Amino acid sequence: MNSEKLLNLNDLDDEVKLIDIANQLSDYDEEELKQLCAALTDESLAMVLVQADEDDQKRVISLLTNKRIIKVFSYMQTDDIVDILGILKVGKTKELMNLMNENDKKVVKELLGYKDDSAGGIMTTEYIAMRETLTVKDALAKIKAISPKTELLDTIFITDQNKKLIGTCELRDILSSELDVSLEELTNKNFVSVPPEMDQEEVARIASKYDLNVIPVVNKKNGLIGIITIDDIVDVIVEEQTEDALQIGGVDKEETIDSTVGESVRFRLPWLLVNLITAFLASFTVKAFESTIAQVVALSSIMSIVTGMGGNAGTQTVSIIVRNIAMGTVELKDGLKLLKKEFLTGLINGIFIGLITGVIIALVYKNAYLGLIIFLAMIGNLVIANVCGVLIPLILKKLKLDPAISSTVFLTTATDVLGFFIFLSLAKIFLPHLI
Amino acid sequence: MNSEKLLNLNDLDDEVKLIDIANQLSDYDEEELKQLCAALTDESLAMVLVQADEDDQKRVISLLTNKRIIKVFSYMQTDDIVDILGILKVGKTKELMNLMNENDKKVVKELLGYKDDSAGGIMTTEYIAMRETLTVKDALAKIKAISPKTELLDTIFITDQNKKLIGTCELRDILSSELDVSLEELTNKNFVSVPPEMDQEEVARIASKYDLNVIPVVNKKNGLIGIITIDDIVDVIVEEQTEDALQIGGVDKEETIDSTVGESVRFRLPWLLVNLITAFLASFTVKAFESTIAQVVALSSIMSIVTGMGGNAGTQTVSIIVRNIAMGTVELKDGLKLLKKEFLTGLINGIFIGLITGVIIALVYKNAYLGLIIFLAMIGNLVIANVCGVLIPLILKKLKLDPAISSTVFLTTATDVLGFFIFLSLAKIFLPHLI
Repeated sequence: MNSEKLLNLNDLDDEVKLIDIANQLSDYDEEELKQLCAALTDESLAMVLVQADEDDQKRVISLLTNKRIIKVFSYMQTDDIVDILGILKVGKTKELMNLMNENDKKVVKELLGYKDDSAGGIMTTEYIAMRETLTVKDALAKIKAISPKTELLDTIFITDQNKKLIGTCELRDILSSELDVSLEELTNKNFVSVPPEMDQEEVARIASKYDLNVIPVVNKKNGLIGIITIDDIVDVIVEEQTEDALQIGGVDKEETIDSTVGESVRFRLPWLLVNLITAFLASFTVKAFESTIAQVVALSSIMSIVTGMGGNAGTQTVSIIVRNIAMGTVELKDGLKLLKKEFLTGLINGIFIGLITGVIIALVYKNAYLGLIIFLAMIGNLVIANVCGVLIPLILKKLKLDPAISSTVFLTTATDVLGFFIFLSLAKIFLPHLI
Repeated sequence: MNSEKLLNLNDLDDEVKLIDIANQLSDYDEEELKQLCAALTDESLAMVLVQADEDDQKRVISLLTNKRIIKVFSYMQTDDIVDILGILKVGKTKELMNLMNENDKKVVKELLGYKDDSAGGIMTTEYIAMRETLTVKDALAKIKAISPKTELLDTIFITDQNKKLIGTCELRDILSSELDVSLEELTNKNFVSVPPEMDQEEVARIASKYDLNVIPVVNKKNGLIGIITIDDIVDVIVEEQTEDALQIGGVDKEETIDSTVGESVRFRLPWLLVNLITAFLASFTVKAFESTIAQVVALSSIMSIVTGMGGNAGTQTVSIIVRNIAMGTVELKDGLKLLKKEFLTGLINGIFIGLITGVIIALVYKNAYLGLIIFLAMIGNLVIANVCGVLIPLILKKLKLDPAISSTVFLTTATDVLGFFIFLSLAKIFLPHLI
């Protein structure tokens, strides 16, 4: 083990250092990992495991005995245990669950029933719930007993005898009240809750909109089954952000910087094949005009300016529409207003860009008609690009498809095929003036 | 005022409803806004203002007397007051600051000195700080006195007599300890702090990496000057996410879904003009081969397949590199390893895509040489695309430019110009076999 890694082991109680170790695990070879596991206490190892990547979690778990794993689990939140169980083979998961105490086993089983990316999948069951009939004095005594074990303290959940959630109570209010006040008086009954099936992205949107530090998860009978804390919300936002950024660029969300060449090829090839269809469609459009191009070869070098600019303009529109769909600030009903606006924006940008391009082309090729043709084609294609830039994401959204993933490929198909078509059709019409 | 808007006014103590009102303010006309301001208490109006967009904040402020504004401010956190003062005219800001009490004025002045998007700009000064010499009993009494007024309670900051930060203390530990324990025993001295000049994006990255719910901001002498809470971190992450998504698509970060046609044209035209230069470069590359194309017109319809696929493959690489630069998981020193990997990925994808394209072209145009040319050109351009996809963002990063904004335009320039060049050069070499 090199000196830098040894250095990291000097102060194993230091949370910050443990997180740094967790982030560097992929640099450890098998032997170094073993030494690390031996050097760390169960509690520190739990901390490292929770923060590590899935691949590193698997590697570490494979080095531990089942007995040690269960000890390490005892220092973890149930939602983190569930995350780790989720990446192990089913047989191993069953083995480990059989070793857990009955209570943990029940909670883990419940959590395993929800999808990873749903509210139920990211919630934890470690919250403080109290009856509204308690006094501040009772509550403080209860908090004193429970607090070392729970993740969150700011908010206490108030439930009735059937575990139905009736409100939330801020710890600050309890601390600043007289001892004989009942919790009922301090309870806020206007709260936001989510069902366990809700997509994590939607949960994050709600948390961010209402500045919530914790969201209760309730079943259909309004029974409190878990809570989602803000640090998990931050993880969700960062995760979804990465997925969106990659998918817009045509990269599978599973691909990371550490993917092997084989994985990268497998992840990227399907998207390239989809785009190849677009490329062929555009190519066949041009092929239909070969006789025109044969007579005026200059067309072949000019035409890609029209399609390229269409793609750029359309991408601008798609970016802003897709982003606002993701934030929930654009609905289908806004479509008409947006269409009108983007039509005008495309028209004005088309006139500007078309004019500049037209003048340059007319001068370079010494033919005013060639300039006129590209001027008109540019306006047409930029209007089409902006209109499609609104329609495509909204239609994909309506069809319950993710607009972030497939908007651009449909957009380029439209701007390439129609851009070539408009430009070459105009050229065909004006042919006598071009030769 | 229509019935829906009136309905929202029924229960003004309800935080959730107030946030919904804040989000709908742009639908209120002048008269409705006046009615709303009159109907809301100072506290509720403060809540609405904090949650509203900048434009709506300006509209509301313009309807209020200075006296009412100061009253409303008294229900806000100082960082929120500073945000609102920041969007008003300098004269108005001075007027309002003169009406504030001395203490607020001092805090606001200090906060106004930091950039909006720095740690100092997003921090709040409302935290609980205590001396380590206090006992748990003293601390609880102090908390009881202070807590109704502060934003955050989970963490208490421990400072020495010179306000130097020496550690943090979790409220849960105070609540579960005996009354005569000194805070020093409960203090965690391993904590992460940031300087006020740090960019908010960097602060968010640190908070997300270490799962922090609050980050202290300290000056060069380690004096505690403020804290940044997790809800502000979430806002930063969402804001930066939106900026990145828009800028990658060639849209100015200032553009919103509500921008007028004039604004949209002004925001987008510069980016289109930059891309027009790329388009002309590609066009002139093709023009240099006009005599070759004149002899084999089929080249004109095929060549855009090579450039298009190069653009797609390069975008995949750029997406994953840019994203990992943003997350801090890629450094310049990883460049060589990534170059090797992307070179191989480009080669393999190029062979696949080139083979499919080559066979189809050879069959459609009944010329095996045409198929061979596009096969070779595709491999060449996909390798170039993937290599440029690594180099361009890393070089931009090295030059301290934002890789998210300008990577794609340089990439398409490379894949278009070189794609046309390789394909048409090969065609020129094989010309006798094509005619």
